[in-house]
Amino acid sequence: MKPTAVLLLHCQDKPGIISEVTKFITDNKGNIVYLDQYVDHEDGMFFMRIEWVLENFMIPKEKIHEYIETLYSQRYQMTFNLYFNEDKPRMAIFVSKMSHCLYDLLARYKAGEWNVEIPCIISNHEDLRYVAEQFDIPYYVWSIKKDHSNKAEVEAAEMELLEREKVTFIVLARYMQIISDEMIAKYPHHIINIHHSFLPAFIGAKPYHQAWERGVKIIGATSHYVTQDLDAGPIIEQDVMRVSHKDTPETLVLKGRDLEKIVLSRAVTKHIQRKILTYNNKTIIFS
Amino acid sequence: MKPTAVLLLHCQDKPGIISEVTKFITDNKGNIVYLDQYVDHEDGMFFMRIEWVLENFMIPKEKIHEYIETLYSQRYQMTFNLYFNEDKPRMAIFVSKMSHCLYDLLARYKAGEWNVEIPCIISNHEDLRYVAEQFDIPYYVWSIKKDHSNKAEVEAAEMELLEREKVTFIVLARYMQIISDEMIAKYPHHIINIHHSFLPAFIGAKPYHQAWERGVKIIGATSHYVTQDLDAGPIIEQDVMRVSHKDTPETLVLKGRDLEKIVLSRAVTKHIQRKILTYNNKTIIFS
Amino acid sequence: MKPTAVLLLHCQDKPGIISEVTKFITDNKGNIVYLDQYVDHEDGMFFMRIEWVLENFMIPKEKIHEYIETLYSQRYQMTFNLYFNEDKPRMAIFVSKMSHCLYDLLARYKAGEWNVEIPCIISNHEDLRYVAEQFDIPYYVWSIKKDHSNKAEVEAAEMELLEREKVTFIVLARYMQIISDEMIAKYPHHIINIHHSFLPAFIGAKPYHQAWERGVKIIGATSHYVTQDLDAGPIIEQDVMRVSHKDTPETLVLKGRDLEKIVLSRAVTKHIQRKILTYNNKTIIFS
Amino acid sequence: MKPTAVLLLHCQDKPGIISEVTKFITDNKGNIVYLDQYVDHEDGMFFMRIEWVLENFMIPKEKIHEYIETLYSQRYQMTFNLYFNEDKPRMAIFVSKMSHCLYDLLARYKAGEWNVEIPCIISNHEDLRYVAEQFDIPYYVWSIKKDHSNKAEVEAAEMELLEREKVTFIVLARYMQIISDEMIAKYPHHIINIHHSFLPAFIGAKPYHQAWERGVKIIGATSHYVTQDLDAGPIIEQDVMRVSHKDTPETLVLKGRDLEKIVLSRAVTKHIQRKILTYNNKTIIFS
Repeated sequence: MKPTAVLLLHCQDKPGIISEVTKFITDNKGNIVYLDQYVDHEDGMFFMRIEWVLENFMIPKEKIHEYIETLYSQRYQMTFNLYFNEDKPRMAIFVSKMSHCLYDLLARYKAGEWNVEIPCIISNHEDLRYVAEQFDIPYYVWSIKKDHSNKAEVEAAEMELLEREKVTFIVLARYMQIISDEMIAKYPHHIINIHHSFLPAFIGAKPYHQAWERGVKIIGATSHYVTQDLDAGPIIEQDVMRVSHKDTPETLVLKGRDLEKIVLSRAVTKHIQRKILTYNNKTIIFS
Repeated sequence: MKPTAVLLLHCQDKPGIISEVTKFITDNKGNIVYLDQYVDHEDGMFFMRIEWVLENFMIPKEKIHEYIETLYSQRYQMTFNLYFNEDKPRMAIFVSKMSHCLYDLLARYKAGEWNVEIPCIISNHEDLRYVAEQFDIPYYVWSIKKDHSNKAEVEAAEMELLEREKVTFIVLARYMQIISDEMIAKYPHHIINIHHSFLPAFIGAKPYHQAWERGVKIIGATSHYVTQDLDAGPIIEQDVMRVSHKDTPETLVLKGRDLEKIVLSRAVTKHIQRKILTYNNKTIIFS
Repeated sequence: MKPTAVLLLHCQDKPGIISEVTKFITDNKGNIVYLDQYVDHEDGMFFMRIEWVLENFMIPKEKIHEYIETLYSQRYQMTFNLYFNEDKPRMAIFVSKMSHCLYDLLARYKAGEWNVEIPCIISNHEDLRYVAEQFDIPYYVWSIKKDHSNKAEVEAAEMELLEREKVTFIVLARYMQIISDEMIAKYPHHIINIHHSFLPAFIGAKPYHQAWERGVKIIGATSHYVTQDLDAGPIIEQDVMRVSHKDTPETLVLKGRDLEKIVLSRAVTKHIQRKILTYNNKTIIFS
Repeated sequence: MKPTAVLLLHCQDKPGIISEVTKFITDNKGNIVYLDQYVDHEDGMFFMRIEWVLENFMIPKEKIHEYIETLYSQRYQMTFNLYFNEDKPRMAIFVSKMSHCLYDLLARYKAGEWNVEIPCIISNHEDLRYVAEQFDIPYYVWSIKKDHSNKAEVEAAEMELLEREKVTFIVLARYMQIISDEMIAKYPHHIINIHHSFLPAFIGAKPYHQAWERGVKIIGATSHYVTQDLDAGPIIEQDVMRVSHKDTPETLVLKGRDLEKIVLSRAVTKHIQRKILTYNNKTIIFS
């Protein structure tokens, strides 16, 4: 893996942006290995992801951000993020009692599918400690009381840990607690949840029971960034499978697990690859 | 196509039902060509569809209903329907301005895919008269005023036509009017609608705009029987397709058309084949 | 619909291409409404589709081709095609006896979904003349003898017609004859076929029977450009559906029709939109 | 989980079979909790799966096989298998170097999704020993030489182990060796393989490369019982996903992993549930 830089940006669409940005990179001897862009003609917004090899690039790595800031950001009123593939994202996983998503994440991690570090797994229950131990990852438990009286305290401890571990994003792998607004505000569009329905159908609790009750012929799962509105954040990925009148709430739960883990892992993949831009409570997913 | 009888029934599940019903048919020299059954163990309900060739069947066609009534219906407190494949269902199509579902239905009809008669097409607009004329099917227009002041009158005229034409079920092929409770009551679970979303997401008007607004990654269509609750009747069939951030409300509308017509036609196929049982606001779809 | 120009090009990937081409258009006051590009890093090839509004564009429409030729084509050893949305593609449809694809194509045409003209339908059988008449499109029949003794003659007549009608591409809508190499050579990557299997499985005759014989759990359909290798041209679009052991060859044929017509129409849509590039017997499909 | 018996049978279709078999069970006070049947009208074959609770069943468990044999098997020339849910199937897993299928199988096993025992994992490489150790399952390695000179010897050792461990079926979880005819003969329709293509497309080696070479728009995976014809045994389950011209052989390999593990696990689920009948190199999959 050669060291590269990834630039994700959006701004008002104006003539010449692609041309200028690509010229900036190639003129400075950056070899572009990825370019994708998208224009939302409704809102007149321009979105781009561009990645180039740093070897031979004439601007020192630590100066690139400043150059983009100076040359383009103000002129185009650009919002941008610059990443280096050498800086691995650091991912914390939150779990409760179900293991299927956790195993799927850790199996990929162990197989080296992802350019990521997983410094910690956090839970409100002891149940999945054995999984963390199988993979030698520190497992932290803070029990949240039923009356939520210690929730603020617990989240404070969690956030301290996240900070200490330099966690850059959080994955809720069937974590059955609601994240507080404070914590969401600290990781805006950096907390990925998996909801076990085809959102916006069946928001809230027990979506498979709701689906069975309604008699749907297809069930789904949805991964999204967590925002302060429950199950209403920007959708990253969805998938579905056929079911029939023969299914019970129990078989739906069982079948749905496959959807959940795949849909969650696809979202995590895109996030790690820095291929997601959020705008207006929606995602632009670069391919 | 040999003449057959189709029996659709449901009742409390008791030992021996399948055994007795199949014995009744085979003892009387009926050749069973289809049998499918399903038990809802939650509710303890038994559902069956059985079809047999009438040739050599020892009970005269016009007596079969009475025999089943006498022998089984009361004993098992059975709800049943008996159909003969020679009695073609008669289907009325309601349309407004969009032609894609109508063309799909008529192309299948013309190609002889279905054992059905289509005696009339009913609309609140003149727009699709040319399609009806292409296929030589009578086209009736009753305009409903914006204030709905003549709606009762229009529906009365429509129902008179439906009765005169011995219509057995109605297909709303993107018909943009709400059917009154009276009309629904006359055709209980015999009015099929196509809703252009993955229900129960995006009930009501402009579902593609709602879907775009929410940023979903998959759109769907749902065919269901019309009940007095808007878009909440028993779901017959659903299907979905992937979309992306690049889609606009307009491209969703265009892509969705393919879903709508296929999902509607699949539901109509199952209805014509008498393979749908409804129970508790859900459908059992025999395969 | 504002007049636009569409440029489809490919060449060896070199730094600066996107930058130069977009600059050329914006410098000349062309408003870019679509840009998508793709680099095949394996082969080092660059592919682009760019579309801009001609209003205010400083280079006269009839000079654009020459300018691109002069300025870029040689320098980059570029292969390019320039289209104007005002020049509607002209599509001939070839059919045999099955109507489902034909109806699907004509229903879209009639509904105005496509920027296309359909000047003629050609067949080796009289069977579908009634469909052509429903839509007021000239229908031509040339019977090909079983021993193919008159095939060259028939194709000569067909090609004369195609030329006279200025046909730009051909759609084989379940046309059951093999197109000769001569005819293919006259319309390279401009003849779209629908094959009723998930290619490359089940090449050749009776694919549904082959699929049933093999006991597959999913069937498919494939639209592709016709080349001189049977069913081996560049694939444009594929789709699939689940089947089961309960299906017979006959039910597969019936179910498959929906796949065939949708998959064919999606391919035709992309072709009409000039969103397909072919390279190395594959397609690049711009979204 | 109440103790139940599962009867899987097939025979020539004759009037009265369902009736007699269900009567036999209910007359002896067996409570039927599952019944599904299928008639292949082409071949005139009848297939059934029936499951009943043993509590109160008047025939002792160890006599049931004999009774069915005596009462029905000969009369109907029935082929049947009788299972008890208390007798857990014992599954051996064969692996080579890739961990994704193995992890998926073991995560389900550990989560208690399956009524199965996994007494051993067998490999030709040391690579995945760490996974077996994570889950405390014995891991055996026999290296097969490149010239296959020791293959017979290795398989003999493996078969001895399988016998000692009372293994009832084998799962090839991306095992990269061909199983000999002798071993297949010992486990007829009891070795499940996952092939990383949509069979029968891309039989043999490197199917993702073949798929990329052909430019398909959809990739697939297929689980099937191993027979002596390579990749040609009865198909149990298939699934697919969309890909595009942007995919490389490498991204196909990565994306395909999700298909492989899900498709393999679905097949294993059905096998463990004794819901698969094989006939004429095809499967009947009860739902």
